[in-house]
Amino acid sequence: MKGLYAVIMAGGKGTRFWPYSRESLPKQLLSITGHRTMIQTTLDRLTPFIPPENVLILTGESYFETVSKQLSNLPPKNIIVEPEGKNTAPCIALATAIVQEKEPDAVMVVLPSDHVITDTYRFHQALDLAVKAARFGPYLVTIGIRPTCPETGYGYIEMGEPVPIAKGEQVYAVRRFREKPSREVVEEFLAMGNFLWNSGMFVWTAHTILSAFMWHMPQLYQGIKKICESLGKPQAKKVIRQMFSEVDPISIDYGIMEKYEKVLVVEGDFGWSDVGSWASLSDIMTRDSNGHVSISELASVDSKDSIIYSPGKLVALIGVENMVIVDTDDAILICRKDQTQDVRKVIDILKSRGMTQYL
Amino acid sequence: MKGLYAVIMAGGKGTRFWPYSRESLPKQLLSITGHRTMIQTTLDRLTPFIPPENVLILTGESYFETVSKQLSNLPPKNIIVEPEGKNTAPCIALATAIVQEKEPDAVMVVLPSDHVITDTYRFHQALDLAVKAARFGPYLVTIGIRPTCPETGYGYIEMGEPVPIAKGEQVYAVRRFREKPSREVVEEFLAMGNFLWNSGMFVWTAHTILSAFMWHMPQLYQGIKKICESLGKPQAKKVIRQMFSEVDPISIDYGIMEKYEKVLVVEGDFGWSDVGSWASLSDIMTRDSNGHVSISELASVDSKDSIIYSPGKLVALIGVENMVIVDTDDAILICRKDQTQDVRKVIDILKSRGMTQYL
Repeated sequence: MKGLYAVIMAGGKGTRFWPYSRESLPKQLLSITGHRTMIQTTLDRLTPFIPPENVLILTGESYFETVSKQLSNLPPKNIIVEPEGKNTAPCIALATAIVQEKEPDAVMVVLPSDHVITDTYRFHQALDLAVKAARFGPYLVTIGIRPTCPETGYGYIEMGEPVPIAKGEQVYAVRRFREKPSREVVEEFLAMGNFLWNSGMFVWTAHTILSAFMWHMPQLYQGIKKICESLGKPQAKKVIRQMFSEVDPISIDYGIMEKYEKVLVVEGDFGWSDVGSWASLSDIMTRDSNGHVSISELASVDSKDSIIYSPGKLVALIGVENMVIVDTDDAILICRKDQTQDVRKVIDILKSRGMTQYL
Repeated sequence: MKGLYAVIMAGGKGTRFWPYSRESLPKQLLSITGHRTMIQTTLDRLTPFIPPENVLILTGESYFETVSKQLSNLPPKNIIVEPEGKNTAPCIALATAIVQEKEPDAVMVVLPSDHVITDTYRFHQALDLAVKAARFGPYLVTIGIRPTCPETGYGYIEMGEPVPIAKGEQVYAVRRFREKPSREVVEEFLAMGNFLWNSGMFVWTAHTILSAFMWHMPQLYQGIKKICESLGKPQAKKVIRQMFSEVDPISIDYGIMEKYEKVLVVEGDFGWSDVGSWASLSDIMTRDSNGHVSISELASVDSKDSIIYSPGKLVALIGVENMVIVDTDDAILICRKDQTQDVRKVIDILKSRGMTQYL
């Protein structure tokens, strides 16, 4: 489709999939749920919709080589290095500068690189509608997910009035964003029925997000302008590095979405998960007759509902329930399913012991 | 010491230390509690007391090579192959034939190859007393262990009257043997105070056990006689093989000890354990401040009282209590500490799937 770009944000670090994920190999570069890595799957999902030459990947310097190898079908210049991780707003600002220079009218589809979507057809339908909405006016369009459980780890989007974009297709005005509310509040949201999960997927034209930067993040706007002027010239790298070094780490949600007056949301229902922890695999992968999720050969005795990641090894379980078991070449994690957030405590222990080889 | 032989029984198979132990590498050939294997430690413990040339090892054909390598300080001819595993009585019969041919008056110390003894000095004291008792008359002498807990997995020995062998040293007549009694019965035994664990260690002269075979296991006695005649001749191997093929598998306890009228017991208190399961390591190895027993580097969060065997790998535990975790090159076991006996169910599953490579 002409005038359509994808911006895939692939700079995430994260320790939640330790010991499989490491500082040098974050979640988006791993194959957690299948044979392809998450970033490969993200690209696979987009390329029927957006041609590879219009897909930009933004990632950290230390991941550049691995990303390039994993996405060898992309033109090398489409893999762009963020000099430092400064959350999503500076990342999107850099992407905006690049798209703006090519085609100011183009629509940008901005996506994380490490989410799971099981129904590609419905994902394309939602994207299609969001692109229409983004072309319809100076809107910032988000994709919201119909909640399937009272998850407190996500941000929520409150839907307002429907905004008819085309016949029979409805998009909603966003009333407000609510970042990670309490359990009680979430249950209220679910009862009210007009709240969606914030998936972190955005669609807009380059000039609309540019003007939003101008109004709400003027420092970044100045940075974008300087980058636009430098692109294709020898100083480009230095200008980009300077913008990143000067800016505070701020998310696009906090910096722009929550402040911008014309935000729309497209409701998506395509089997989405942000795969936020080992425990989340229970929801998105097929369970065996004992409720286990595993890619390994299992011998399960008196055991159930566990998550086992141990490529190529037989795993025998006896009396094991609701555990996460992860085996890698140099480290093993055994963790209660409801305590996977404490993996960071393990990381802290390893740091305090100077055992950096495991990070 | 002249006229003193050790007979180390090393034919045991057992699956209780799976996946570390395998059909081709049973417990006695593994280093579960330290750097030396259990059979090496067994020999180390004896050689200050009995010269290596007087130590006989009886083991299965498939273990012969590994045993020879591990015990390279023994004369090769001292490692004797049992043609098939037929429990302890035929094994001891074969050893008796060999010792009888060398020195009918010699005392034989018969020992399992896969037990832990932490206090070697007191072990030697007990052996010394048992040897004295065995020389004192036509006694079969056992070594009993003062119980430290109401263990139902062991056999018990009821002590009768003391039999003074030498000044100040007491040995007891055995009233009866009780094989693996119920929990209630064991608690009664402990309350009565005159019950010891049957350690499976025996001391007797060759001619005393030979006469015991004659009275109580006449078929094996005939076998021993034939072996004695064949030793040093070409047909020896065939004669031994024939005896083993004809005899039923019977333990020396059932075949002789429970029937013989003059059995004595020496009370031993030398930190003994038969290391019957992964869980038993909690009793014989040093626990860390979280109650874990491990030879691995651990990162323990909100976890306690587990047993971790994972050579060379970091193990991170979160919310893990009373579990056994064993990692090997091709298999991992995660098991509740109180269900380690169910390892055999895993073995059954693997057999039913034809996954013999893991057995």
